[in-house]
Amino acid sequence: MEEWLACCGSAKFAQQMAAVAPFSNPQEAIDAAKDIWFNKVDVNGWLEAFAAHPAIGESPSNTVKSPTTTAEFSFSLFCYTQITAVIAKWSNGEQSTALATATDATIQELYYWNSQYRQKFGFVFLICASGRSTPEILTEIKKRYLNRPIIEFELAAKEQMKITELRISKLFTANATSASTTRTPRCGDNSQRFCARLAISVSNL
Amino acid sequence: MEEWLACCGSAKFAQQMAAVAPFSNPQEAIDAAKDIWFNKVDVNGWLEAFAAHPAIGESPSNTVKSPTTTAEFSFSLFCYTQITAVIAKWSNGEQSTALATATDATIQELYYWNSQYRQKFGFVFLICASGRSTPEILTEIKKRYLNRPIIEFELAAKEQMKITELRISKLFTANATSASTTRTPRCGDNSQRFCARLAISVSNL
Repeated sequence: MEEWLACCGSAKFAQQMAAVAPFSNPQEAIDAAKDIWFNKVDVNGWLEAFAAHPAIGESPSNTVKSPTTTAEFSFSLFCYTQITAVIAKWSNGEQSTALATATDATIQELYYWNSQYRQKFGFVFLICASGRSTPEILTEIKKRYLNRPIIEFELAAKEQMKITELRISKLFTANATSASTTRTPRCGDNSQRFCARLAISVSNL
Repeated sequence: MEEWLACCGSAKFAQQMAAVAPFSNPQEAIDAAKDIWFNKVDVNGWLEAFAAHPAIGESPSNTVKSPTTTAEFSFSLFCYTQITAVIAKWSNGEQSTALATATDATIQELYYWNSQYRQKFGFVFLICASGRSTPEILTEIKKRYLNRPIIEFELAAKEQMKITELRISKLFTANATSASTTRTPRCGDNSQRFCARLAISVSNL
């Protein structure tokens, strides 16, 4: 249940994922996640999941402070309230492109626009940052700031789902790695046995 | 400000209406209300406005109880948390068709479906009941129950706007009546002077 919450911070989402687990492969879990997120989690659940992401310039403890360095930005932009060692590792991967393209000026600009965005829409700017540069993220937030609140709400939910998808894939990979280093591989139908082990591992988390 | 809140229970809506008032006629106020509601009030404001409507079978103090009589239903279906004498009078008009067509059986059915609806979507079933019979409302709630949460959220916001429109019109009518019984009509360009008085009256509420 905790790892489903790490994939998406809605309690209803995590409960329903746990209820339909185990999954035999990542795609099956992602398909279930999409169905639950878009058809079963209500708008309060969407807001709950968005609130699990701290705003740019905020620490996970919700203390507001302006980022002054690239390192501080890199920490605050992508880290999550209930950060764990696994999630931190995932975040490092997701932010690599943005980190490589961030400067103090773009960080300050992003901080400003996130503040404007939050004031207009009532939740943090949410974007699946994987593979996106900081200038690209800036362009996106300025464009999305012009949207009507309901349009932006649905867009943010779609971005949340992209993040969730990535994290579900990483969850399976992490558990596969863990399983392969702690268990002796079996011969025979390896892929099938491997998926079965994974499914049990994920469902028991 | 209080009367704008009576038209729509979002504080942001009421504040922004008060900020752009006075209005020279009801249509001007309705146009401003639509712009504010759909473009400026965020999704939290929408939920706040929805929460100002008690669910079917709930009293304004939020005590849940099943309605057992038509009279009880008629009170609970349309009354509002911050009920005032003016709003009560408006509600009587809005519910006249539903009241005339309600039976104990349809009331119980409506109560059941409202409970199901609230469980799925996280807010009360909202419909502009003016001119609609109880069977029509029942048909609508069953149909809308099948929607995805985000679709239903936007539909509910549109119904809220219809209610707001009716109430803004009634607000102007009420103030016109008040003005005509307490002030001596002037000669000359009556309509223009009358509208000017109304605008002041509304903006000062």
